[in-house]
Amino acid sequence: MPHINLSNDFPGIRSLFIYRPETAAPLNALVQTMLHNPHPTLSAGERELIATYVSRLNTCFYCCNIHGAIAKHQLGDNGELVQQVLADPETAPISQKMKALLKIAAKVQSGGKNVLSADVEFARNEGASDIEIHDTVLIAAAFCMYNRYVDGLATWQPDDDTMHDKMGEQRAREGYLTPPVKVELIE
Amino acid sequence: MPHINLSNDFPGIRSLFIYRPETAAPLNALVQTMLHNPHPTLSAGERELIATYVSRLNTCFYCCNIHGAIAKHQLGDNGELVQQVLADPETAPISQKMKALLKIAAKVQSGGKNVLSADVEFARNEGASDIEIHDTVLIAAAFCMYNRYVDGLATWQPDDDTMHDKMGEQRAREGYLTPPVKVELIE
Repeated sequence: MPHINLSNDFPGIRSLFIYRPETAAPLNALVQTMLHNPHPTLSAGERELIATYVSRLNTCFYCCNIHGAIAKHQLGDNGELVQQVLADPETAPISQKMKALLKIAAKVQSGGKNVLSADVEFARNEGASDIEIHDTVLIAAAFCMYNRYVDGLATWQPDDDTMHDKMGEQRAREGYLTPPVKVELIE
Repeated sequence: MPHINLSNDFPGIRSLFIYRPETAAPLNALVQTMLHNPHPTLSAGERELIATYVSRLNTCFYCCNIHGAIAKHQLGDNGELVQQVLADPETAPISQKMKALLKIAAKVQSGGKNVLSADVEFARNEGASDIEIHDTVLIAAAFCMYNRYVDGLATWQPDDDTMHDKMGEQRAREGYLTPPVKVELIE
């Protein structure tokens, strides 16, 4: 049960967005810009993988499942690739550049100062650009916020893979700025 | 030296905002909404104290100094109160409600799931409202992002209390949406 009375039945961060529309607007604009809007080189699926991986490191069930489902739909994957990345990015069938960016993301998750020049140099040697390194750090940092926001208020997080998949499909197609389809969310 | 070439000499998060205006817009709108815009019950100074305290827990030198200076100016303090809160909120001359909210903020900093019903109940017994608890969790979570963003890219963080104070005075007066006054920032 949520720590405060949110007066709505939506799951996870959506319940908080409805409760507090003032802060929902910039929070939603941020995730749309980072993950869905066109990017010079990183696909939406690759950016969603970074968000999913950091959410798993923060043990945020809701964000990991939803963004994992969005990543799956963005990548045209059957779900296997996302699970392989979550299990171990090193052995997952992704580029060396993505592996290096996920290493930086994990450093950010454990604390900003843990990102060393050597980590950045390593990513650069694997072909990562400054913009890609910047956006990886920001996405990882932002999910340290979203995850804490969702879990810190103990939002309702239904354990229903079909629902995660439906929500993921909607977000992959529409982005983050449309309202959630209520019939898909409420059991 | 920053991990990537930011092509500007501004300090901390300002250098990142200039480098990547696409994400600067929602990041700036978020901090403006959380900390500067009118709030039903928490003063801007009280909200800046939460941001400052979390930044100290994350050992983010830049954010702790700047938001500490903003808090000082918002509270009409000579700086002593901010230092007392940073040293130990329990013995600082602040309300019992603020002490309870700072306890929740510290829990969020260490991980969202660490906020327990008992922490929320305790804050409520000290007079905290649901909106105050919500906003405390969000401010604490957001500074786990801002701090990681600033430190994860190793931004330039000048060690100059006079500059922190000038920047703090500007932000306390104008909020977050105006450009930084360059003459005040570059030594």
